[in-house]
Amino acid sequence: MANDRFLKACRRETSDRTPVWLMRQAGRYMKEYMAIREKHSFLEMCRNPELAAEVTLQPIKAFDLDAAIIFADILLPLPGMGIELEFAKNEGPVIRNPVRTRKDIDAVRMIDPEVHVPYLMQAIKMVKAELAGKVPLIGFSGAPFTLASYIIEGEGSRNYVNTKKLMYGDPEGWKALMDKISDVVVAYLKAQIAAGAEVVQLFDSWVGCLGPDDFREFALPYTKKVIERLKGTVPVINFGTNTGTFLNLVAEGGGDVIGVDWRVRLDEAWKTIGYDHAIQGNLDPVVLFGPVKEIRRRVKEIVDMAGGRAGHIFNLGHGIVLGTPVDSVRAVVDAVHEFSGK
Amino acid sequence: MANDRFLKACRRETSDRTPVWLMRQAGRYMKEYMAIREKHSFLEMCRNPELAAEVTLQPIKAFDLDAAIIFADILLPLPGMGIELEFAKNEGPVIRNPVRTRKDIDAVRMIDPEVHVPYLMQAIKMVKAELAGKVPLIGFSGAPFTLASYIIEGEGSRNYVNTKKLMYGDPEGWKALMDKISDVVVAYLKAQIAAGAEVVQLFDSWVGCLGPDDFREFALPYTKKVIERLKGTVPVINFGTNTGTFLNLVAEGGGDVIGVDWRVRLDEAWKTIGYDHAIQGNLDPVVLFGPVKEIRRRVKEIVDMAGGRAGHIFNLGHGIVLGTPVDSVRAVVDAVHEFSGK
Repeated sequence: MANDRFLKACRRETSDRTPVWLMRQAGRYMKEYMAIREKHSFLEMCRNPELAAEVTLQPIKAFDLDAAIIFADILLPLPGMGIELEFAKNEGPVIRNPVRTRKDIDAVRMIDPEVHVPYLMQAIKMVKAELAGKVPLIGFSGAPFTLASYIIEGEGSRNYVNTKKLMYGDPEGWKALMDKISDVVVAYLKAQIAAGAEVVQLFDSWVGCLGPDDFREFALPYTKKVIERLKGTVPVINFGTNTGTFLNLVAEGGGDVIGVDWRVRLDEAWKTIGYDHAIQGNLDPVVLFGPVKEIRRRVKEIVDMAGGRAGHIFNLGHGIVLGTPVDSVRAVVDAVHEFSGK
Repeated sequence: MANDRFLKACRRETSDRTPVWLMRQAGRYMKEYMAIREKHSFLEMCRNPELAAEVTLQPIKAFDLDAAIIFADILLPLPGMGIELEFAKNEGPVIRNPVRTRKDIDAVRMIDPEVHVPYLMQAIKMVKAELAGKVPLIGFSGAPFTLASYIIEGEGSRNYVNTKKLMYGDPEGWKALMDKISDVVVAYLKAQIAAGAEVVQLFDSWVGCLGPDDFREFALPYTKKVIERLKGTVPVINFGTNTGTFLNLVAEGGGDVIGVDWRVRLDEAWKTIGYDHAIQGNLDPVVLFGPVKEIRRRVKEIVDMAGGRAGHIFNLGHGIVLGTPVDSVRAVVDAVHEFSGK
């Protein structure tokens, strides 16, 4: 690996500079991405290995990033589970048969990644060949809670009423669903690792709708099991959004690296999760809409909060927002390297 | 006052039972409310003192609540400030001329509550006459940050890009806008107090999009000033959503009572804000979609976390969600009194 800063940081080993990559670094803020997106739907891009590989590599060519992340979506395993997924025009994904009853839960199937998402593994192999060891490649999956809540709600949700109805009203049904989803996540990630992903990240984007006690009971056990079953493979990044009030519990779930959003200070977050974990984060993505001077000041602040300790991976606290100026992305990446250089 | 549990709790004095009221207790989950709403738009209801008074009293008649809250909306002062507000059909409120530039900020006007929102004070007086001292009446306002972000975004927002653009790009402009809004909030609340509100609550519903350092710089000083200027009037409840990672700073803003959402444990939250504040909260509103047995178990858990300490006001962690069963609301109110009875 020509650039192993990122892998070293996952193992909490020192290197010359703090590694940086950005969630949703391949995306609509890049004109190269839009040139392809104009001709293909989002799902077509995910399911076409050549396109997925090309889009994965766009930000690597444009910026001095220390890791690539495969272009995909956390909902790609759903059709293989028997869940009908559509990306409605200009809306988010919609599920035609959301899971609400015991019968629905019983009908959820295990996936065979080579049968149901073969294009993803092909894309990973193509990216690896193109990268030729330049930077490592990250695979990813939704965490069990986030996948469950999407499958249950059927679309983006404000209050997660159906999800919590199931949790509170039928805890046994909830457990059965979460066990099935956990199996899917493990198989899905193991296939990505077999195809060449050098690190994997779990995205628990919606788990922040839970309070600490509900997180402990309804989400943590499943994330923990998934991470345990990945032991001995590659480093795991355990990322959740809006989990700042129970980061101690998030860390209990395991993962070589804990990802944190911008609602916590990085220094306090690291103290809370413990220095036996690496940490990833946590610039507010909306700072990238501000002046470059202010972006640089805030990057420096976060690098300083990490205090030169080995095991900090710089990232945003959430994915790049639509409309983010490309120059701001470049400013972040370059500032991380500049301010953390030895 | 026949029932002074709520006022006593605001002052951290003991009483026979923990007082309870519920944010958005007058609302679409009640058939009595819907009977009126079918004939009038939301804004019509707010602007008609008879209707606003009637709707305010509906939950007081239906449940054993310890406080009433005037039926109103945090955006009612906007037209008086020169901001054109519309409630689009089936959508949320929309602002036709959102504030984005220095010129826009300069154009924001101070309100005269008796001229711009006279109906609100009339409604308060009518409710007070009807209540005849049965339970206290709460007045309220949006907190400066939440009002600013609505005025800037012009509608509900996912990422608050325009708000943060102004904050990061023109901190002086931000300060000018927040100073104006703070003046409005003080005048608006003082008028409600003069009309008879016995307690006032600040709703900082959107401030949870900020990290702790941004909260300290861009929101806290203004909330603090507002609360300082209300000293010597009535008790103030300082409530924010998604502020669990910086409750220490929220408490710095002041307020006799700090309101907390469900993402924190009540016992830990109280410890963080300090026992020199009363605390309000914090049942997850979506628990009300679960079985009554589970609702009661969770109410008891929160009552137990308060540990019999004087100064706990039971509430949800956020407003009642559309579709909440009326029987669940009754179950919460009754369980609070049952489990906290001496």
